[in-house]
This record gives sequence, structure tokens and C-alpha cells, in this order.
Amino acid sequence: MSGTQQSSVATSSGCNDSTTPGHADQMVYLFGRSRTDGSAALKHLLGGKGANLAEMTSIGLPVPTGFTITTEACHAYITCNNTMPAGLMDQVREGIDFLQQETSKRFGDDSNPLLVSVRSGAAVSMPGMMDTILNLGLNDISVKGLANATGNPRFAYDAYRRLINMFGDVVMGVDHSHFEAAFDEVKQKYEAVMDTEVPEKGIIELCDAYKAVYKAATGDSFPQDPYAQLEAAIEAVFSSWNKHTAITFRQKEGITGLLGTGVNVQTMVFGNMGDDSGTGVAFTRNPSTGENDFFGEFLVNAQGEDVVAGIRTPLPVSDMSKWQPELYQQLLEIRSKLEVHYKDMQDLEFTTERGTLYILQTRNGKRTGAAAVRMACEMVSEGLITQDEALCRVPANDLTQLLLPSFDLEAKKKADPIAKGLPASPGAAVGRLAFTAEETVQRTTAGESVILVRKETSPEDVAGMHSAAGILTSTGGMTSHAAVVARGWGKCCVAGASDVQIDAKNQTATIKGQVFGPNDTLSIDGNTGEVYPGELARVSPSLSGDLETLMAWADETRSLGIRTNADNPEDASRARGFGAEGIGLCRTEHMFFDKDRIGWIRKMIMAESVEQREECLSKLLPFQREDFVGIFTAMAGLPVTIRLLDPPLHEFLPQDDKAQNELAEQFGLDVAFIKRRVADLHEANPMLGHRGCRLAVTYPEVLVMQVTAIVEAAIECRRNNIVAMPEIMVPLIGTAAELSKLRALIEKTINEVKQTQQFDDVLGIPIGTMIEIPRAAITADEVARHADFFSFGTNDLTQMTFGFSRDDINSFLPDYLDHELLPCDPFQTLDRVGVGPLVKMACEKGREVKDKIKLGICGEHGGDPNSVEFCHEVGLDYVSCSPFRVPIARLAAAQAAVNAKNA
Amino acid sequence: MSGTQQSSVATSSGCNDSTTPGHADQMVYLFGRSRTDGSAALKHLLGGKGANLAEMTSIGLPVPTGFTITTEACHAYITCNNTMPAGLMDQVREGIDFLQQETSKRFGDDSNPLLVSVRSGAAVSMPGMMDTILNLGLNDISVKGLANATGNPRFAYDAYRRLINMFGDVVMGVDHSHFEAAFDEVKQKYEAVMDTEVPEKGIIELCDAYKAVYKAATGDSFPQDPYAQLEAAIEAVFSSWNKHTAITFRQKEGITGLLGTGVNVQTMVFGNMGDDSGTGVAFTRNPSTGENDFFGEFLVNAQGEDVVAGIRTPLPVSDMSKWQPELYQQLLEIRSKLEVHYKDMQDLEFTTERGTLYILQTRNGKRTGAAAVRMACEMVSEGLITQDEALCRVPANDLTQLLLPSFDLEAKKKADPIAKGLPASPGAAVGRLAFTAEETVQRTTAGESVILVRKETSPEDVAGMHSAAGILTSTGGMTSHAAVVARGWGKCCVAGASDVQIDAKNQTATIKGQVFGPNDTLSIDGNTGEVYPGELARVSPSLSGDLETLMAWADETRSLGIRTNADNPEDASRARGFGAEGIGLCRTEHMFFDKDRIGWIRKMIMAESVEQREECLSKLLPFQREDFVGIFTAMAGLPVTIRLLDPPLHEFLPQDDKAQNELAEQFGLDVAFIKRRVADLHEANPMLGHRGCRLAVTYPEVLVMQVTAIVEAAIECRRNNIVAMPEIMVPLIGTAAELSKLRALIEKTINEVKQTQQFDDVLGIPIGTMIEIPRAAITADEVARHADFFSFGTNDLTQMTFGFSRDDINSFLPDYLDHELLPCDPFQTLDRVGVGPLVKMACEKGREVKDKIKLGICGEHGGDPNSVEFCHEVGLDYVSCSPFRVPIARLAAAQAAVNAKNA
Repeated sequence: MSGTQQSSVATSSGCNDSTTPGHADQMVYLFGRSRTDGSAALKHLLGGKGANLAEMTSIGLPVPTGFTITTEACHAYITCNNTMPAGLMDQVREGIDFLQQETSKRFGDDSNPLLVSVRSGAAVSMPGMMDTILNLGLNDISVKGLANATGNPRFAYDAYRRLINMFGDVVMGVDHSHFEAAFDEVKQKYEAVMDTEVPEKGIIELCDAYKAVYKAATGDSFPQDPYAQLEAAIEAVFSSWNKHTAITFRQKEGITGLLGTGVNVQTMVFGNMGDDSGTGVAFTRNPSTGENDFFGEFLVNAQGEDVVAGIRTPLPVSDMSKWQPELYQQLLEIRSKLEVHYKDMQDLEFTTERGTLYILQTRNGKRTGAAAVRMACEMVSEGLITQDEALCRVPANDLTQLLLPSFDLEAKKKADPIAKGLPASPGAAVGRLAFTAEETVQRTTAGESVILVRKETSPEDVAGMHSAAGILTSTGGMTSHAAVVARGWGKCCVAGASDVQIDAKNQTATIKGQVFGPNDTLSIDGNTGEVYPGELARVSPSLSGDLETLMAWADETRSLGIRTNADNPEDASRARGFGAEGIGLCRTEHMFFDKDRIGWIRKMIMAESVEQREECLSKLLPFQREDFVGIFTAMAGLPVTIRLLDPPLHEFLPQDDKAQNELAEQFGLDVAFIKRRVADLHEANPMLGHRGCRLAVTYPEVLVMQVTAIVEAAIECRRNNIVAMPEIMVPLIGTAAELSKLRALIEKTINEVKQTQQFDDVLGIPIGTMIEIPRAAITADEVARHADFFSFGTNDLTQMTFGFSRDDINSFLPDYLDHELLPCDPFQTLDRVGVGPLVKMACEKGREVKDKIKLGICGEHGGDPNSVEFCHEVGLDYVSCSPFRVPIARLAAAQAAVNAKNA
Repeated sequence: MSGTQQSSVATSSGCNDSTTPGHADQMVYLFGRSRTDGSAALKHLLGGKGANLAEMTSIGLPVPTGFTITTEACHAYITCNNTMPAGLMDQVREGIDFLQQETSKRFGDDSNPLLVSVRSGAAVSMPGMMDTILNLGLNDISVKGLANATGNPRFAYDAYRRLINMFGDVVMGVDHSHFEAAFDEVKQKYEAVMDTEVPEKGIIELCDAYKAVYKAATGDSFPQDPYAQLEAAIEAVFSSWNKHTAITFRQKEGITGLLGTGVNVQTMVFGNMGDDSGTGVAFTRNPSTGENDFFGEFLVNAQGEDVVAGIRTPLPVSDMSKWQPELYQQLLEIRSKLEVHYKDMQDLEFTTERGTLYILQTRNGKRTGAAAVRMACEMVSEGLITQDEALCRVPANDLTQLLLPSFDLEAKKKADPIAKGLPASPGAAVGRLAFTAEETVQRTTAGESVILVRKETSPEDVAGMHSAAGILTSTGGMTSHAAVVARGWGKCCVAGASDVQIDAKNQTATIKGQVFGPNDTLSIDGNTGEVYPGELARVSPSLSGDLETLMAWADETRSLGIRTNADNPEDASRARGFGAEGIGLCRTEHMFFDKDRIGWIRKMIMAESVEQREECLSKLLPFQREDFVGIFTAMAGLPVTIRLLDPPLHEFLPQDDKAQNELAEQFGLDVAFIKRRVADLHEANPMLGHRGCRLAVTYPEVLVMQVTAIVEAAIECRRNNIVAMPEIMVPLIGTAAELSKLRALIEKTINEVKQTQQFDDVLGIPIGTMIEIPRAAITADEVARHADFFSFGTNDLTQMTFGFSRDDINSFLPDYLDHELLPCDPFQTLDRVGVGPLVKMACEKGREVKDKIKLGICGEHGGDPNSVEFCHEVGLDYVSCSPFRVPIARLAAAQAAVNAKNA
């Protein structure tokens, strides 16, 4: 740190441009009991930390007194070739005088010395700047004063050797390893293993050793003049503004317009000055439950690090009332003051030094989802915050914790995870292992709790996945088949746990050498991705009435509609219970995997003529109709958007010999023929293949069957006084011509069914399309001419816009996140830079042609708060998400509305 | 046709709005020797056909005289509820008077009757309108006149029965089957199999039978009054304007602003009126060779259909000089007149009736590519057309015929194709069959001509494909692997011949039951997709010096640069010979399949540490460097854009047991390990997987090796005074962050190599990116900050914008083309509606940030004339295409420039 060498000539600099503060300018802002110059408003001038300390002091908190050197002074230092601005050190000396006055301690004193900390602090939090220096002001004399004052010479010398180390390292650039080597020698001498085992004598010797290290490295003795220490430290903070890491950080984050860093010089206080001293941390409310109760813990005669280190067991903060009742009373008053001032639950650090209470830090406290909800509601009742503020206090994703079971935290503390995958779908599941979907269904039906363990899942596994207690896969990401399906059901899933080696044939999962079979139990944590051997205890979610209150406020506030993605009556009812206002995506393909049906769909795919196909479809029709009657009934009076068949046909065909033989037997087909058909339908890139509306173009009879089932079901409901409100959605449209053609066929079919059914009333079934192919977004004006609504399928739109296959992304996504080539998984949070413009373009072009066209989103993003905000901004009518994410979407939509109002 | 029933009350309509022509307005435009009212300029009023007939007449061609009823009259008829405009029939009668005067024939006459044809004709050619009615004017009396005049009663009655049939069918809507039934009865009676075997007597009886059919169906007798026939026919033409098919057509094509159809009434002339009559077709120049020589054939005493039917063998048109020398002279004069007027080679139909020559039709004649080139050049020399016009006369794609061998047309006529696939890559190949790439190489090396027959090809087959005479696949489309690679080399390829059932194991290809093995020969036609058994004779391309002339004009005219896609020195040289001005896409992956290298790349993929990978890469480095030296040398002084490794790694790995065992042996690896690695690398959608720049992100050492090879090769060339001009292209960029990161690594590597090589001169290697992912186009402004050039990879861009996999599109593309859901294969011709806007957006955004950024295209579209025009319109700097398409691109670029100039 060569900068410090120049400090002696600083004031002689000829640097006098207008940005340099002159003698008369205030470069030092004091904060203390008797006088406080700054406030929160002066963040730009004092840095964030300095402004905050001034703010805390000015509302009457007993903050250890100190002063802040302005960012302007730093700017002057840097622009004048690293020379100290004229007059700065004079003001610093006046600042030290102020501290001496406030504390009745003296800098460098041999009985009750004033010690200070020196910290950097810019207007924006910035890593890579200078580290803190503590205990500044200690020298060979004042260390004795500290020893006397604390009655603890070992502590005093330990503080001194720390200062020499920190000062040498941070200010003078002495290699830390030299200090470590010296410490090791002392430890050897006293046969100590731990630092704490070195006796007082050894620590005193260590101070001398450190001073020798310092001198050897710098050529100078460790400065005994506290003001020299201080000036060097201030210069070091100034210089650190232009450290390589700091510059890089500012460039990367696009931070411009800052003058420099502030320097905070603050009195040190010690909680270890005897039994009338102590230290603690506290929350103004209970961060776990949200209860309005002072919550925290403290240690007598200890420093902050002792609380963190956990060597001694702290006492509950309420016990302070027995120890020092006045201080406790003072702390309670501070607690109220803090909440009134900051209007949020605070997490504070405090120290008492010889019966005087000091508040070292306060900040908004972290909390659980349940606590956030309760606090938000109670603070509104208390008149502390508004409803809008309350809505924004709860991170929408944190509601997950309130809606699903989880493992007991105590139980988790005692157990060790043996593997870790991705937290693909929240919840906590315990069960014995099954390696096929079939076995899962059998054993679950027999009453067993089963975890389905698969390399990856496919649509053939759906029945097993549905019945399993939880799903564990060894490959696949957050949006793999297993993850998406599981989240849709609120089923616990850990995906991509690559340490799990699965041998499905021999029914074993080997994890780090340990072999688990069908009779072994695992516990999987969908919130963290952790996998535990054996059974872990679970806790039921504590869902308080506050959540309903918050949801009601959200509903008052939001303008986005909230629908759900559901394809069976149970999910539909559950989502409706969570507040869904309709179904935004009812997939029809899952319905085909039921064992009564899959045979017919397979035979249909094998068919060699339209007639054969139609015969099979006629067998499937009653099933589909029944499905829709169930869903329409569950969602009576609310819209149900049904997507026509989407996946490529090969997904329905059996891929293994056994299933192929069974199919051959069932329908008297030739196995070789089945194998050939399976091979024929194989695709190099099924995601970009023969699926979606392309199936309806080549096999219109499939569309006709599905539309017939929908319309017949709607008519049956209407005749039973159930208000069925189907909407028909065509998937994977890429050209307006496709939709034009298929819409005509859908309309024709609707009319034919109405005639056959002799139903003359208006059904009013809107016909719309997914916008999930980039070309559909680009030509949305043309597409809109044939669509009553657009529903953005942002999963596929993201796949094609990025050229990322969801199923394959895990081979490179981790590298992309590591290298910060992507801010996050674009399948979790909608990419506003690349995918967003396509959504926006489609909205604008669609509305240009048809101003009342209904716009929604039904991709996984519909349940992601950040993406919901985007949907609000581009003016969608609704978002649709899996049932368990409906409350999250409701809250996120309300937050988006509040943010937009305040923007 | 109920409209005709109302004709008797037509004139009493009270419809008198301003758009209705009054009595005084001209609704009939005459054309004839003595007077012609219309011209080509009146297309909107007279329809295309009517305007054309007027034009031909007015330049002095002996067109059979006639008149055209205006589109305004049609409009009036339709807007007045299908009533004939007042005065129209008076003008029609005056028109008939004019015809009688011009022809000296009389309507309904019993000795030399005037017969007319009635045809519709709108300003835009429109299917679905009314069919032609011929021989109108025949009745029970005039049929005798025609019999006398021709001396051929059978012909006369045959003409009569045809009129009754056409009039009944087209005008009155009598079901055609009734007439057929009557004809069958007569044929039975006279034991005739063919229509022509029915004797004169039978034909006369048939007229009566047809009249009876007419009466039974309509309730009225067949009208004997020629004017009544004419009026009904005119009304039928008017009414056909609003036939369902016509309306649909206009809606679909967006045709608006037309008044209606014109009606053309024209004198019939007969070439079968004796030995002084005849008929023929001729071209003003030779349509096969382009030679400036009158070319055609004729038949004495025959009608046009006799020439087409091919029952009698026509004589060369020059023989007319012996038969009727004056007429031949007249025809030669007409030939000159036509070329001077139309400034293009004309294809004309003529008839002589009793020594009088009539021109029935003239239009621009179809021609071969060679003929087009020769004519265009010669017409410029003759001063007929300008250079710009000459450039536009040759369909750019037709140059293919001049550049590749083809089958002898005579030989093809005699042979029957046994299968038909897609004309994937032009040329004509003959060879015996090989079913693996390996075998192909072996047998070719041994001197055999071999056709490689595969279900589909993969990069592993490249060596075999390269050595084969031609490639035949049973699946895959125009842009399948086989097709793209073959076109790149100008290698003949027929793809997706689905009738070919390939059993590679048993080395058989079964086509329609016929089995072909390794010793059987096939001939495949890459221009048509036809497959013939045995060996078909081939002809060498006749490349005349005119092509070079045309190319020189093209180069003067075009503003687009033309580069080529080539990845070896031979292709590069060939393309340079064809006029390529650089390499726009040099793929580096093909280089890895050489047998000296593939082992190392495979071992590299198997590597489990960076060090192992680097070791393998160091083995590959000399090979790559050598490749680049070769290419730079071939393209000395011209830019060579090298694309870094693009395909997913699994494409390099052996998929079958044998090759896996070999690999295991070569490097002492465990086969199970190899199999696991192959399985690990398997991707669900490789097109959207771990490839392109994503490989460079996870395996930066591969990029470093490739860049090192490029730079070392460039330095080696420079030191040998070869001007190497490499450009480094990063594939599959989706985010600006990717390019920023990789550009830094490329620049660092370039500098390191320069240091190691102690090379201090400026290399000036531009670094750019493919734009092939929609997101890259959408964020092109950000991407441009890190790119010196963009090269549009429109193959992948089309895949992702449409969501179409090139490899799988064949399962639905035929349906899409059939249903007109797509105008063409979007992988052949760039989709201007959906993909075009992304290209345009990227150009604009790129230039916004960097106005000199170089823009090119290297997808397959770079060689497609329509797409080249688009590239010109959006202002690209160059297109790049396979070597054999370079001349096509040069011409297309010139045409685009001419069209833009004239727009």
C-alpha cells in the first residue's frame, strides 16, 4: 500500500480544482449523543454505512459515537494523485476530540484508552473494498490501559496483536502468512493446539513477535502514535476505492456517478469489561412465528463473536430483566422506537459496557414465510404499515413454506444428507424405494409409502409418479419432466441427484457406496434437494388465518387474473380452493395414460387408415367426455382452457419389449410391426417434430374426437344446470394458416355436435392458441385474426428462443450460472431481455388487430413472482400456474400492481 | 346454372346506378383486320386474355377475329341481381356482324357457318371460373354447312355433339355422366372401344341422343338460335365470377379491386378443312439449345389436339416451305415481328384454314437453362434487350443444368423409374450399391462406381458419402444431412425415397418387391429424384462461353458479395473457379472424421480431466493447422470465415458395438466406460442441446486449440508470402455475455500464439458470430458490441423460429404443402413472413450499434435465388453458398439488384 508512504506530504499538494473541498468545507460528519451532523438522506455524501449510523444516532439510539469522512474527501484524494485534502486531518483531530469528550476516554491513554474502528462505506454496497480495522488506538502504552480497564490483560494484548496483524495486512500489505508463522511458533512453545490455549504470557510475547514481523516487512516500526495509525488507515480506505476488484465490480454492475467511499471512524465498545458488561442479538418480533414478542439472547461479559462462536450458551434476552432491569427496560423502549422508525421487524446487535447500553447495528430481520405473513397482517392492525406495504413485505415464494409439509428442523440438524439434488418440487417425503412406476402403484395401493426412484421420468411413469409419496431422479433439471409434473401436483421431488446411481434392473440405488433397495427408506427434502437415509420427522404446516387476510388484500389489489394448470377434477378443486379463477391450461394427454385408454391410443397410432383410427378414437371419446364433465363440474362457472393433443405420438408407444409384446397380444398385432412403427415415429428432435397442431393437420380425426368430447361434455353439464365454460386452445401454432384451417374444423365440429345433440342454445366456446413458437409471436397480428385468445407457452417459447432443450440443459446450465452468462435458469424466471420482447411484440400485434383479445400465460413462469411482475407490466389478462402456486401468483400479482402504482 | 333462366327478363331491370354502363357506353371491344379497339394497356377493362388478343391483332398478327365484352359489363350484371345490362346484346349483335364481315361467314349458315368460342378472362388469371365453350353457332342446319365446308361430316357432327355436351354441362349444369352414358350406348352399338372407332353414322345418332339428354335434364330443347346460345353462354361466364371456388380463390390470394371477368368471343378456325389446312406449334428460337433458328412442327389437315395427341407424326416446321411457301414466308415474318414486339423467344400456336394463316396464341416460351443463357446473350448482341433484361431472363436455378452431368433425355424416355424421392442434390449418378460408408470407401478406392444407400446419413458416413458416385436415402428431406452435405459437394443425391426398403445388415434394398444387392446397379437422377434400375446413359454438360459472359454482366451489376461454404482446399478451389470471393462458412467438424484424427477426438471426449483433454487436443492441433494452411492457400487473398466446433460431441462417438470395441482397444479404455459415456452424452433434443459456443464455455481448451491452429496456420502462410485472411466465427450465440466471454478468450489466444511464434505484424483477424438463435437476433444490438461481423445461420434460425426440426419435418411437411399451410419448404426458401423479420431486426439492431458491421448469410438459403433477393433487400454484404451454387447466387444477386433498381 504505497499510498500511505505519501501521507506526510499530503497537505502540500497543488491540487486545487473546484471539486476539492477547501479548508472551510466540512469533510468530517460527527454522530454522538450531543451532536449529529448527518442523516439517512446524505447517503451519497457519507456512504450507506455512515448515513445509517447518523440516522440511528439521530433517532436517539445509543450508538457508539463516531464520525464519517465524506466521499468528497475520498474523491479529492484520488483526483489529486493520492494526496490527502488540505485540512482533512485537522477536522479528523477535531472529530477525535469530540469522541474523547463524549466517551471520557482518551486516544492512547494508559488507563482508559479510546479505541476506534475504521471502516469503508460507499453509497452502494461494494465487495472488494478495504477490510475493517479494529482496536485502532492501541499501542505499547494504551494496551496497558485496556488491560487495567478490563481487568483482563490477556484480552488487551490479544486486541493489540490483532491490531498489529490487521494494520500490517490491510494498511501496509504485509503478507498474512508471516503473522501466522509467528503465531505458530508461540503455540509450539506453549504446546497449544487452539489459539485460545495460549496463555497471557504467550500473547504478550506474540505482540512483540508481530511488531518484529511488521518491522521486517515494512522497514518501519509499528506506529505508536494513534493519529499516525488513523491517518494511514484513512488513506488505505481511500486507496481501496481504486483496487482492481472494486473497479471490476463497479464496471460489471454498471455503477457510475459515485464520488468515492466514505470512511467511518467509530468508538470501540467492549462487552467483556466485567460482569456489568455483555453482548447480545435480538429481533423486535419472533422471526420464526411472527409473534409480536421481543426475541433474542445475550451473554454476560462477552464479545459479539462469543455469541456467534457458540462456546457458551447464551441466555434468553428476557433474562436481562433479572440481570440489569434498567438496561432491559431501555432495550424494550429501543425495540419500540426501532419498529416505529423503520416500520419493519429489526434484527439488532447490542453491547453493554460497564452498565451502558450500545446499539451496534440494526437491519430488517430475516424471517420465515409464516412469520412474514403474520407480521405483515399485525403491523397493518397496529397502524404501522399500509395494506400495500404489507403485501410487499412477504416474498411471494416464501408462501410455499406455508402450504407444504416440511422436515422438522431439529431432526435435520441431527441427520446428515447423503446426497443433494435440485429442489425440484417442495415438500418433505419419506418412503421405501420403488424403481418402476408399476411397482409404485402396486405398493402404494397396498398402503405403503413409496419414493419412486428413476434416472429420469417419462409420460409412461405418470401413474406411478402420481401415487408415489415423492420422486427422486438422478438426472434432469428444475424443469425436467419429473420436476414439472411434480410441481403441478405439489408432489415432493428431488431431481438430478447425480450421486444416486440407479440400477433399476437389480432394484438398487447406490449412494456414495451405500446400497439402498426396495426395503430401505429415504427421506427427501423438496425444499432443499437434500436426501437423507432413513425416516426424518416431519412437521405439519402452520397455516394461520393471516394468510387468508393477506390473500384477500392481494385480490383487492391485483389486476391480473389467476388461473391454474390442472387436468383432473381433484387438482381443479384444490386450485379453486387456493383461489384460482379458472383453468388456464388443461392438458389432455395425461388423460390417455390410464390403463383403460392407453391401449386404444396405441392402437390408434398403429392404425393404417383413417377408418381404423376413427374406430379407436370412438372408443376414447366416452373417456374424454367423462374427464371433461368432471373438470367442468369442479370448475362450474369458471373458464376451462383445454389444450388439444400436444405431445408427439411416440410418447404414447411402449418402448420396451415387454410392453410391446403385451400390446401385440391385446390387439392381435404383429410385434415386428409394432417395433417398426415405433422406429418410424422416432424423431431426432421430438421437441421440434411432429406434435401440437401438426398432429391435427395430419390426423384431423383426433381433433374432431377431442372437440366432440368437449362439446358433448359441455352440453351434458348445461343440461344438468352446471355452467361449463370450455375454451379450446390449439397448441404449437407457427403460422396463421394453421390456425385458420383448424379453427374452421373446430367450428364445424362444434356445430355438428350441437346438431346431433339437438342443442340450440349458445355455447359460446372461445377458440384460441398457444403462443409458444417464435414465429407465432412474430406474426401475432396475422394469427390474432383467427384467435379469440392467446396463451403464452413460455416453456417452449424459451426453448426455441434460446435454442435450449429443457431436457438437456443440465449439461451446460451450471457452467452458465457459474460464469454469470445467465442471471438465472430461464425456465424458472422469464428472460426479459430475449424472450420478453417476443411476448411483448405478440401482445402488441395481437391487440393491434383485435383490441379485446384475451392474453394469458400458461408456462411454468406463471407461478414465478418475477415473471408474474413481467406479465403485469406487459398487460396480460391472467397468469396460470400449478395449483400449489396459485396463492404465490395472487400475491405476486398484487405486488406487481403495488410496484407499478409506486413507480 | 339458374342464372341463365333469367336472361329473358334481363333488359327490364331497373338497376341504373352510376357504375352500370348505359346504352351509349362501349361494352364490346372488337379485334380484327379492319379494326381493333383494345390493347395490352386495357387489361383491367378487357381482362388479360382480351387485352392480349387485341394487342396481338394490333401489331398485325393474323389472329382469328373476335370481340371482348368488358369487365364493367360483368360488374353491372352482378350488381343488378344477375340481369344483363341494357344494350349489351345489341352491341354483341353488332360484334357478330363485324365477325361475319371479316370472315365472310354467317352465324348459323348452312354452307359456311361462322362458329365462335366463348371464354372467360379476368385481369388476373383465376382458376375456378367458367370453362371454354367451343363451336358455338352450330345447330341442326349449320352442322350441315360445316360438313360441307370441311368435306368431313364425321368431324362436323363430332363438333356439334361436343357443343351440346359443353353447353349442357357448363352453361346449363347438366350432369356430365348423362352424356357419357349416351356415348357408351352408341359405342356398344357399334362395338367401338375407342371414341375414334365410332363411325360417322354413330356420331350423327349421338347428336340426337345428346339433344335428348339435354331436353330431359333442362326441360327445354337445345337452343337452335345461335344468338340464344351466345347470350346464355355470356350470362354463364358472368355468373361464374361469383362461383364459390372463384370467390375463395380471390379471398385467399387477397385479390380485390377487380370489376369482374371479361368475355372473349372469337371466331373458330379449323386446320382440318382439307389439304390446304393445317396446324402447328413453333418456337422463335430453339428452346433446347437457344440457337437463333425457327423451330417447330406441323400437321397437314389436322386440329391442334392432333399435334398434342401424338397419333400422327408431325413434320418439321421448315417443311412448310415445300407445302405452302407463301405461308411459311408469312410465318417467318411473324416470327421476327413477335421477337421485336415481345423481346423474348415466343412459343406460338398457328392454324391454316384453306390457305389462310391464323395465329391462335403466343407466349414466352419455356427453355432449358443452356438455351436461356445463349438467348439472353445473343439478344443483347442483337440489340433486342439490355444487359439488365438479359440477366433477368435466366432463372438462376436453371444454371444447375449447365454445371452438372445429367441423364440423356432419350434414354430416360425409354426407361421407367422404380422409385421417386426428393431431388436433394442435382446430377446423375450410376453405380452398384453399397450399404455402409466403409464399404463405399473400399470399393470406390478399388475403382468401382458406387451408390451409397442408407436409411439416412450421419456425420460418421461422411467419408463414404464423399467417395460415392451418388447417395440414395429412404428418409430425410431436402435439408437432411445427406442432402445438405451432398449439395455442398455438388454430389448427386436422391433423399427420402420412401419406397426403398433398406436392410443394411443383409445388404439389400427392396423397391416395390424387387430386391437389389451389392452387385446390382441403379441410376439416380438428382434433378428429378427418380431412381432407375440398371445403367442409364448420361450426357456431359454443354457449357458455352455465353455463361461466362452472363456471369461477367452479373458481377458488374450485383452489389451483394458471393462467398462459398467449403471446408477443404478442393472445394475452396472449385468455388473460387466458380467466382466465389471468399469462404463464408468453413466448418471445422468434418475435418475431425479423418481416420487419423477421429480416435483422438473420441479420446478427448472421453477424457475425465482438463489435462487429458488438452493432451488429446495437442495431437489434433497439427492436423487442424495443416487443414487451415491448405484452405488459406487455396483462398489466398480472400477472407475465410472459420466456424469453431459446432455439433454436439456425441456425433463424434461410435454408436455401434464394433466401433466402440475398436476405440477401447486403441486407447486401452474399458468398453463399459465408453458405453456409459455415450449414454451420458445422449440428448433428447440434440439440436437444442450442448453444442456450438456452449461447448466452448464448458470446454474452453477446445476453442483454444482451434484458435491456435488458425493463428499458427495464418502465420505460417504469411511467412510463405501467402495472404491468409482468416475470420473467426463463434456458433450458436444466444446472449451477448457468451460472445463477450469467448471473444476475450479468442483474443487472448491470438496474442499468446503471436508471442510464442514471435510474430509481431498485424494479423487483423475479425471475430464474429453466427446469428442462428432467435434470441441472438432479438438482442443483436447487445451482441454486436462484441462482434466484427454477423453471419446468419438461417438453417438453425428457421428451425427455431418455426419449431421445425430439419431431420423430422418430413413427417408433416408434405401435408403442409398439400394443404397450402406453407408456400414452400422454409429450409429451401427463406420464410420472409416469420424468419425474415428476425433477420431484418438483427441487421438493423446490429448496424444501430456498429454501422460498419459486416453482415452475411451462410445457411443453405444463401444459394436460393428467392432468398438471395431477400438478402439484397435487407442489405446484407454477402451471401455464402455451396460451391456449385456460386454461379446461381451471382446471377440471383444481379437479378435482385436489377429488380430493386426497377422497383
